[in-house]
Amino acid sequence: FSNLFQMLPIKFLHLCIRRSCVSNHLVSNCKFYCQKSSSKVRICQVLSSQEFGKNVQIQGWVRSVRSQKEILFLHVNDGSTLQSLQVVANAELYKRCLTFGSAVKISGTLEKSPHKKQLVELQADSIQVIGDCNPVDYPFKIKERHSLEYIRQFPHLRCRTKTFGSLLRIRSEASTAIQSFFKDNGFVQIHTPVITSNDCEGAGELFQIEPAGREQGPSEDEPHFFSVPAFLTVSGQLHLEVMTGAFPCVYTFGPTFRAENSQSRRHLAEFYMVEAEIAFTHSLEDITTVMEDLFKTATECILSRCSEDVELYHKYVAPGHMDRLNHMLKNKFKVISYTEAVDVLKHSQQNFAFRPEWGCDLQTEHEKYLVQHCGNIPLFVINYPYNLKPFYARNNEDKPQHTAAAVDLLVPGIGELCGGSLREERLELLKSRLEKTGLKDTYQWYLELRQFGSVPHGGFGMGFERYLQCILGVDNIKDVIPFPRFSHSCVL
Amino acid sequence: FSNLFQMLPIKFLHLCIRRSCVSNHLVSNCKFYCQKSSSKVRICQVLSSQEFGKNVQIQGWVRSVRSQKEILFLHVNDGSTLQSLQVVANAELYKRCLTFGSAVKISGTLEKSPHKKQLVELQADSIQVIGDCNPVDYPFKIKERHSLEYIRQFPHLRCRTKTFGSLLRIRSEASTAIQSFFKDNGFVQIHTPVITSNDCEGAGELFQIEPAGREQGPSEDEPHFFSVPAFLTVSGQLHLEVMTGAFPCVYTFGPTFRAENSQSRRHLAEFYMVEAEIAFTHSLEDITTVMEDLFKTATECILSRCSEDVELYHKYVAPGHMDRLNHMLKNKFKVISYTEAVDVLKHSQQNFAFRPEWGCDLQTEHEKYLVQHCGNIPLFVINYPYNLKPFYARNNEDKPQHTAAAVDLLVPGIGELCGGSLREERLELLKSRLEKTGLKDTYQWYLELRQFGSVPHGGFGMGFERYLQCILGVDNIKDVIPFPRFSHSCVL
Repeated sequence: FSNLFQMLPIKFLHLCIRRSCVSNHLVSNCKFYCQKSSSKVRICQVLSSQEFGKNVQIQGWVRSVRSQKEILFLHVNDGSTLQSLQVVANAELYKRCLTFGSAVKISGTLEKSPHKKQLVELQADSIQVIGDCNPVDYPFKIKERHSLEYIRQFPHLRCRTKTFGSLLRIRSEASTAIQSFFKDNGFVQIHTPVITSNDCEGAGELFQIEPAGREQGPSEDEPHFFSVPAFLTVSGQLHLEVMTGAFPCVYTFGPTFRAENSQSRRHLAEFYMVEAEIAFTHSLEDITTVMEDLFKTATECILSRCSEDVELYHKYVAPGHMDRLNHMLKNKFKVISYTEAVDVLKHSQQNFAFRPEWGCDLQTEHEKYLVQHCGNIPLFVINYPYNLKPFYARNNEDKPQHTAAAVDLLVPGIGELCGGSLREERLELLKSRLEKTGLKDTYQWYLELRQFGSVPHGGFGMGFERYLQCILGVDNIKDVIPFPRFSHSCVL
Repeated sequence: FSNLFQMLPIKFLHLCIRRSCVSNHLVSNCKFYCQKSSSKVRICQVLSSQEFGKNVQIQGWVRSVRSQKEILFLHVNDGSTLQSLQVVANAELYKRCLTFGSAVKISGTLEKSPHKKQLVELQADSIQVIGDCNPVDYPFKIKERHSLEYIRQFPHLRCRTKTFGSLLRIRSEASTAIQSFFKDNGFVQIHTPVITSNDCEGAGELFQIEPAGREQGPSEDEPHFFSVPAFLTVSGQLHLEVMTGAFPCVYTFGPTFRAENSQSRRHLAEFYMVEAEIAFTHSLEDITTVMEDLFKTATECILSRCSEDVELYHKYVAPGHMDRLNHMLKNKFKVISYTEAVDVLKHSQQNFAFRPEWGCDLQTEHEKYLVQHCGNIPLFVINYPYNLKPFYARNNEDKPQHTAAAVDLLVPGIGELCGGSLREERLELLKSRLEKTGLKDTYQWYLELRQFGSVPHGGFGMGFERYLQCILGVDNIKDVIPFPRFSHSCVL
């Protein structure tokens, strides 16, 4: 099925998927819970139903109320889809507590709608308000499109807005799409641990954990809970590498942590990362192929399964973004070496805050320039300076400029989306590098992986929130995660 | 497809799924990575192939070596399946470094096997050792079946044993099965946060976090990173409850934490939990239906997709467990009230370490007795004493024995597998209970959920490792998670 997707032009895909969701869908076709009486149905089922005359019961929240002389019109949404169901009733059924945001239970008959916009409407014969909603106190107002900044102030209520409701459905589908991609390609999912005793990668940005109430730190009476200092993971890579001693491909998808003191639109203290590791490869191209396929397959899957929700973003949040995204999907991703990239930057007319220089990290401004320079197509930058990369990156043993087989994927508007490398599998090279950095004792276990049936391997990580920002055109990372955590903020 | 499963007897299912995995499978049918040359294939593909005469290249680890006069026999496994591929070669291709555990790359021709046990074998024309393995230093020995306790000592290598390799494939399929169950039933997946400022549920068992290097705790110069104390989550329930204000059903699946100072076979400091929350229900039966369906659907799916891996456990680790599991699957789960359960315990002949008493928590010994008493079928215990349950459990307002609408699911051999409840949606009842416990200010946001379009709802959590223990018959929880964390142990 996913292979079929890859062969179809995106536009056609949208059409055929939207049809398949909407047509031929009997109300009683789907199995949902809390529907002991077969008349209780979800609004997504009703909207695609053609069982006119059928008695049903719906439950949901009021999105609009309009009471004319003799007729009451309601729009009700239950979160099963972005769309609301139009309910028509005798004006006598109107109650004052039937306000925007109130929860209702409605019974009635499905009827063919006289309006072009909808196939079906519900002729109500009973309306019950099961949870009222005072419109004065409720922070969201009827018919207003609140900004992402505004709704972000209400972490416990924002899922009730159209915009954030759509985000949560998209995020859920995106998780499924990513996991399906890996499953379909024979990857085993590994739950790498959140708590780890590894502390190598930039100790300044780690969170450390201890049982609550031990604010004075460990003592002789009360040593560390785990006997050693323990931290929140910054990457599952080393744990995945363990698995490439027994599996051809593995991946992990879960929360990752940085104690970065940043309020930026690009960083969170807790974010989700997809990481994959592939055994039996000597080629960086094997890794970039998986990265590109993951991006394209998952995105096409999301575009087809959540077309209406994504459309809301591409219409109201980031107008014109669908074209930018299609441009990324229909072109083969580009490749440039780090050395070439630095050349491009040095010869550009742009005034960078950081001067580009061989041997220095690329800054976000450089990354964005490079992507633009390459036609706003995602760009792989490969073979970074050896000294910029951690101990596990594979030595290219090249001259005069010494590089490692590492790669970053840069995307329009965001900059770095993925980072990866081949891993150093040669025991002697690895040992000497760990010795130089004083890490040899800590990584004895890692060296042992190279002693027993070691295989060449490599992998990458992709920031899940940045991926969502990239496909939806959302500017602030806090708007693509249900409960954002960042310095000075851990609400709920 | 999953509905079809439910209608078929388990035994038949096994047969038809095993066939579907094995038959009609062309080597070139599947898309796998690192196979630029179309001749590179996975062993799971080769084993089900009938393309005799085809040239292929496999990569994997040696499971056995036997060199006869003129012929060399190897068994090679690559982790894509439990089974190994038999490789036959001219004895001249033998090398000393071709040892148990070494990594090899082998090219040759697929041939029909003369042995009954296998369909196909590989006639090798080239064997390359890409990573050797010194059999003296390697902790696992050829032809030995090491105990779970023994292999647990080597967290970085244990995935290379048959037993733990199978566990990891099963665990991966189990995650998929659980997520598919929820997706198929219209649940939206919510990534509830790991870091939280909630500290209500048993403060003694929480982990607290701060940036590393702040061992003296927060000070005036350096306040808390999040401005407030922050902890690792013990449950995503309250965050899921936020979502029942906008979605009909939601779930979360991820790591959960307890700073319990325990070395028991039942507890971990970091474990996985599946939690679901269902809107628009007043009935505990709606919740127990989902629990039972989840258990049965996921288990049947795992049994069919990982039949060989599960068989290894039911043959060598827990002989006879398949019968016990089938007994659970083919019977409707039983229901007993807490009050009846205490009666049963009081009238039993068994000497309990803890005397059963109305108003006290059930101990593991009680739970195991009750399950046995009810015929070793999973058992729902419902309506627990009100005072035993947290503030959010719904008040049954009954007399003389005051109970809450809470439920535990007890399973043979394990005891508690799931816990759930209806949640108190009535603002005044909730407010007064929070006031009594001094938590009203902390949970102002939670009260607000009941003020704006509140709906009756409920949910449950299931321990994922306990679930795996239950279906596989594994005694120690440390043997069903890739990297176990518990007090005094955080290796790797």
